[in-house]
Amino acid sequence: MVVYELELLKNRILTEGSVKGEDILKVDMFLNHQLDVELLNAIGKEFKERFTEKGITKILTIEASGIAIAVIAAQYFNVPVVFAKKVASQNLDNETYESSVYSFTKQREYKIRVAKKYLNKEDKILILDDFLANGRAALGLMDLVEQSGASTEGIGIVIEKGFQEGGQILKDKNIHLESLAVIEKFENGKVVLR
Amino acid sequence: MVVYELELLKNRILTEGSVKGEDILKVDMFLNHQLDVELLNAIGKEFKERFTEKGITKILTIEASGIAIAVIAAQYFNVPVVFAKKVASQNLDNETYESSVYSFTKQREYKIRVAKKYLNKEDKILILDDFLANGRAALGLMDLVEQSGASTEGIGIVIEKGFQEGGQILKDKNIHLESLAVIEKFENGKVVLR
Repeated sequence: MVVYELELLKNRILTEGSVKGEDILKVDMFLNHQLDVELLNAIGKEFKERFTEKGITKILTIEASGIAIAVIAAQYFNVPVVFAKKVASQNLDNETYESSVYSFTKQREYKIRVAKKYLNKEDKILILDDFLANGRAALGLMDLVEQSGASTEGIGIVIEKGFQEGGQILKDKNIHLESLAVIEKFENGKVVLR
Repeated sequence: MVVYELELLKNRILTEGSVKGEDILKVDMFLNHQLDVELLNAIGKEFKERFTEKGITKILTIEASGIAIAVIAAQYFNVPVVFAKKVASQNLDNETYESSVYSFTKQREYKIRVAKKYLNKEDKILILDDFLANGRAALGLMDLVEQSGASTEGIGIVIEKGFQEGGQILKDKNIHLESLAVIEKFENGKVVLR
């Protein structure tokens, strides 16, 4: 149990997170633009503890914000990271699994891709990401895993917007979901944690 | 001195890197798509050793490939990371430093931005990135640092394409540049290291 560090995460969300509009939480100070490496280590350790029984062989995330979380966590799991790419890149392998993700924040659909050779059917995948809101990114990543024949053993999220549908959608699919902080609601521009 | 680990990096470039066209080296297997966390730690330790005298207060990189390198290295420097963002994002702070970077790989210009509050004039910045080719990304990052009044104390690169102009441009500016592996040339689709 790393209760202390999780309290640290929650305190930073409450003190440094800023609410923008109806449903956007900015945590640029430590998670999405500036990165607090000590806090990332606490997050990584906590994910290891929560998924330690799963025999994880690979961590899958999505560029760009997920990369820092995944790579620090991977040190505790001792496994490689693969990050799905969001745009067609000249450098990407031609043989890819592909899925479509609708972003409510950016109000557009985008493709995510992983080169086939980095997901094998024996892999036990842990998906990690910074936010869970409507769940579209997580579902897209699960789709890539499913296409490869590997199994999604769990999904670890740093901040879940509990008032949006993503958490319920994933639970309905019997996915082992662990969200380190869950936002109950935004009230007068402030975060209320569950 | 971490000679052994650097040999590991060089061996992996030689055995797993694949040359595409005239000037593209794919190192998707461990640096750009799948991430080898043990190798990243060796890289991070080496950067710490090479810039240990510089009193670095912050590491600056650019999304997406630079993030993994920067965040692992930051553990040895015990400083935060800031990554420049490549696209206009609804979530980015309005008060930003901005620069333009021309990508030869993608044959287009793109903007890079950092929120002003994450670069302070007292900061001693280490810029880290995966590749150095024409030097445009490094110059763009240096421009952001200069706008903030902070100082660029050094630039650490994992793989420099020694046959392109970036290295010389940075040396001409008296920047302390450290490239862990330098590619002399591509020959018959193979990498020749310096």
